[in-house]
Amino acid sequence: MIQQLFNPSVQHTLDLVGIFVFAISGALLAVRKNFDVFGIAVLAEVTALGGGLLRDVVIGAVPPAAFTDLGYFVTPLFAALLVFFLHPEVERIQAGVNVFDAAGLGLFCVTGTVKAYDYGLGLTASAALGLATAVGGGVLRDVLANEVPSLLRWDRDLYAVPAIVGSALVVLCIRYDVLNPFTSGFAVVTAFVLRLLAMRFHWRAPRAWHRRSTAREDESAG
Amino acid sequence: MIQQLFNPSVQHTLDLVGIFVFAISGALLAVRKNFDVFGIAVLAEVTALGGGLLRDVVIGAVPPAAFTDLGYFVTPLFAALLVFFLHPEVERIQAGVNVFDAAGLGLFCVTGTVKAYDYGLGLTASAALGLATAVGGGVLRDVLANEVPSLLRWDRDLYAVPAIVGSALVVLCIRYDVLNPFTSGFAVVTAFVLRLLAMRFHWRAPRAWHRRSTAREDESAG
Amino acid sequence: MIQQLFNPSVQHTLDLVGIFVFAISGALLAVRKNFDVFGIAVLAEVTALGGGLLRDVVIGAVPPAAFTDLGYFVTPLFAALLVFFLHPEVERIQAGVNVFDAAGLGLFCVTGTVKAYDYGLGLTASAALGLATAVGGGVLRDVLANEVPSLLRWDRDLYAVPAIVGSALVVLCIRYDVLNPFTSGFAVVTAFVLRLLAMRFHWRAPRAWHRRSTAREDESAG
Repeated sequence: MIQQLFNPSVQHTLDLVGIFVFAISGALLAVRKNFDVFGIAVLAEVTALGGGLLRDVVIGAVPPAAFTDLGYFVTPLFAALLVFFLHPEVERIQAGVNVFDAAGLGLFCVTGTVKAYDYGLGLTASAALGLATAVGGGVLRDVLANEVPSLLRWDRDLYAVPAIVGSALVVLCIRYDVLNPFTSGFAVVTAFVLRLLAMRFHWRAPRAWHRRSTAREDESAG
Repeated sequence: MIQQLFNPSVQHTLDLVGIFVFAISGALLAVRKNFDVFGIAVLAEVTALGGGLLRDVVIGAVPPAAFTDLGYFVTPLFAALLVFFLHPEVERIQAGVNVFDAAGLGLFCVTGTVKAYDYGLGLTASAALGLATAVGGGVLRDVLANEVPSLLRWDRDLYAVPAIVGSALVVLCIRYDVLNPFTSGFAVVTAFVLRLLAMRFHWRAPRAWHRRSTAREDESAG
Repeated sequence: MIQQLFNPSVQHTLDLVGIFVFAISGALLAVRKNFDVFGIAVLAEVTALGGGLLRDVVIGAVPPAAFTDLGYFVTPLFAALLVFFLHPEVERIQAGVNVFDAAGLGLFCVTGTVKAYDYGLGLTASAALGLATAVGGGVLRDVLANEVPSLLRWDRDLYAVPAIVGSALVVLCIRYDVLNPFTSGFAVVTAFVLRLLAMRFHWRAPRAWHRRSTAREDESAG
């Protein structure tokens, strides 16, 4: 049982911050898609809680934390309200939102990996579920908004790789029995910084070979 | 244990009616999308059973009722057949279908909330899952049909709000210990009537502030 | 307990082959949609493991086999790498891939049905889940790629029907107590051959009556 990496109240606060910023990204997309106030709230909830919900259903941790902790449920509603009333201001600080989103990504890939391992999964499976925890909410967000998940698109800065690195660091720490608040904090920070660098320098992953010249850039025509 | 609000056979009949009308809405969309007969059956099943399936997986009630009660599974197939052979006639009575759909909405938000509470969830979480039970099938229907979920669109009459009110009434009744067939029946009827009024008077929810003037109305251009 | 129909290592090898070819189909769609290398890997994993994951979550077999057997997880990554480097060659042998995909379809509808029955579901529900196991990954693949699931489209050769026949044969065998490696092998082969015939002769399912003349053929305009 290694779940309490951090002081419980510190962990809980970090979780709420991550949930809040993920919810902001969902609510902003909802505004861009012209959804009404309930659509904004639904997309905020799904984006913020979807990854953890997916993980908990898969590992059999039901009812999922999203439904047992009132703070987890209410936080996205605050984010939705904020965006509803102040979305031009929130969009103007998009860069700041992206920094928080990177923090959420780093945090959730680590806590997701640890929770999956705690429920008896193997190291590789735990890392995969940590990744799913970190990116699952965003994928559900894009599916509900009827868009190609930004995770999968080649023309977006690296998003999965920082989470993969974070999850991999955690399973390495577990493997060599050195997982503690410092090493897991290091994994969080590594994923966070990698994501910031990817945004700053527009790091992208390669597409399939021979594809670059022939592909139509406009995938909506596909 | 408060699950048997109504006489079991009454409850079961109501469930089947709700499942049937939800399935009709799925099958009609499938016809409009030009799906074949199996696509019609799949969309009918998913629309009718998706919300309850989601709820049961989340609360850990597996295998879900959708897979243990043969009537739940077969009813959408009848709806699919009916629409397959008679869809112009069914579309002509769309107004009637909408009334039944409103009844299904009212019924499922109430029974979904009660079942979630029975499985140990808190009041807020139970209401949220009741809402998910009522609207989840329709969201899955629209996702599979590759459309923006009509639940999220600002240009559709209120759909979530009646279900939220119904679920909220149920948790208030639970909170004050007055849940019985009469009060829960009242919650069903309230959600039902609110949905009918929303359709009759085209009640809509607001979009984000400043958005009304600048948004392109055609979201498919988004 | 009837799960071990075949010699365990034979069964496992067959599973891996099915997973591999399903992953190829996901990876090829990802290349066509112009996804980057991580998008290719994600779509390969989801296509290959999604159907079984869905089944295991519904029947309560958590953590799902996809997360407890390392081979299940790693095989789609090999398929993704292969397509990433050699996709023109893989597309050229598309016909061969389709044959393997048909084999995966036949195999998974049978093993999915048997596993669902083993977990206590009724015969009809087991057949339905067997079908979901066989086609679920492909539906998730198309939803993530933001396309109308090819399963639902009338202009694609029959895909669900062979799986339905295979699942139905299995539940008939269970019902009459004659399920054994030979009869279940016969069900696999029947589904496999039906799918091959459907591709060879372009068998299609009918759309709703009156629809053929009036429907716009271009559903993307819908």
